Amino acid sequence: MRNIKIVLEYDGSRYLGWQRLKDSDRTIQGKIESVISKMVGEDIEITGSGRTDSGVHAYYQVANFKIDSTLNTKEIQEYINHYLPNDIVIRDIEEVDDRFHSRYNVKSKTYQYKIWIGKYQSPFMRKYSWYVADDLNIEIMKKASEFFMGTHDFIGFSSLKRYKKSTTRTISRIEFNQEGDILSIEIQGDGFLHNMVRIIVGTLVQIGSGRLDKDVIMDVLENKIRADAGITAPPHGLFLKNVEY
Amino acid sequence: MRNIKIVLEYDGSRYLGWQRLKDSDRTIQGKIESVISKMVGEDIEITGSGRTDSGVHAYYQVANFKIDSTLNTKEIQEYINHYLPNDIVIRDIEEVDDRFHSRYNVKSKTYQYKIWIGKYQSPFMRKYSWYVADDLNIEIMKKASEFFMGTHDFIGFSSLKRYKKSTTRTISRIEFNQEGDILSIEIQGDGFLHNMVRIIVGTLVQIGSGRLDKDVIMDVLENKIRADAGITAPPHGLFLKNVEY
Repeated sequence: MRNIKIVLEYDGSRYLGWQRLKDSDRTIQGKIESVISKMVGEDIEITGSGRTDSGVHAYYQVANFKIDSTLNTKEIQEYINHYLPNDIVIRDIEEVDDRFHSRYNVKSKTYQYKIWIGKYQSPFMRKYSWYVADDLNIEIMKKASEFFMGTHDFIGFSSLKRYKKSTTRTISRIEFNQEGDILSIEIQGDGFLHNMVRIIVGTLVQIGSGRLDKDVIMDVLENKIRADAGITAPPHGLFLKNVEY
Repeated sequence: MRNIKIVLEYDGSRYLGWQRLKDSDRTIQGKIESVISKMVGEDIEITGSGRTDSGVHAYYQVANFKIDSTLNTKEIQEYINHYLPNDIVIRDIEEVDDRFHSRYNVKSKTYQYKIWIGKYQSPFMRKYSWYVADDLNIEIMKKASEFFMGTHDFIGFSSLKRYKKSTTRTISRIEFNQEGDILSIEIQGDGFLHNMVRIIVGTLVQIGSGRLDKDVIMDVLENKIRADAGITAPPHGLFLKNVEY
């Protein structure tokens, strides 16, 4: 069997998220699997680097799958892109070592969150950014974000109450960028709990608007109480931007 | 009666164009008129700087309307934006002299056309750019575009065969910009015939891909034969970018 690695870009607006569901064909994984399965004539499962939630986008998601096929990688890419809806695309494809696993081999991931800080909501960015009408003190947000850096138990910044495994994660980079009316926050870490990026962003935004004090971050990292942290930022501002192996 | 000027931004994807239709509520003008009419309790007509076609977008479209209302302009803007679908927004509003007319007073207009020249079609730009898979020689396109500059009879670059009035127009600026995988062509002129910008862009793209010779522009400006010009570029790459008064 050949092991094929693909890099995907998708607009998550229409989908219930990455993970295949039994009773819906509106998942990214499901769409891709159904095209590949048709291509090779048998049921194929693909492994993603991780799930993205309903409405979350990806500039760069990685998946792999094993097939027997005489097509070369370029032909496979063209076939799949031809039959995929045009809100999902394979950017890149390569044949990799049999041991490559999209999820187990992840070293870190980078997410980007886009906040629209213009006077009015942009018709063109309405599906690709979070419109925040409050004035934001970006300098305070930057300062506050430093509390997230490093290794912590992030359970208070997750929407799940219990995990079977460790909830300690390491954040290695948080970067703010402003281009026109878009404030972008990039967060890189060795892994993220469920909704962790969105709760971090929601908390930073509420600190920036003065609704929360920046000490809340230290408090929640210690007391681990989700309710003490900020709101969960909406999914449509979130982009999986890179997966590092 | 007060004369109110509004500056609009809209994502044209879902609409049949600017102009109100009797048998459809999927027009930009219709949507806006219906909200304003509800606000003041009587039927209000708005005048746009011109029509945009089905699927064409606007960063900056100007319209005006006359109403009796005790609301100030900020309240009017907030009311209308609240009830408009979120793919149409009033960016700006002001009360103007009674003689101001959105169409008659136009001095020039600027359109922007976006062409996606990346390896694959972007899921995020698929509705906001024309994906051209051919390799484009942009230098040749720039050179060819100079033939359009100045005052000409543009009837050969229009999809309508006959006009009641003059079909002579003056193009004062054509500017190419490349940012990442987007090639943008900005065209400013004192007026545009039906589909003129899209046929100019379609012709330039076919010159850039080697499918047409650049002499075709001079030929069609002289012989006025639409069939000799290039294809009509699709609507979803076109943005009304400015209206100058």
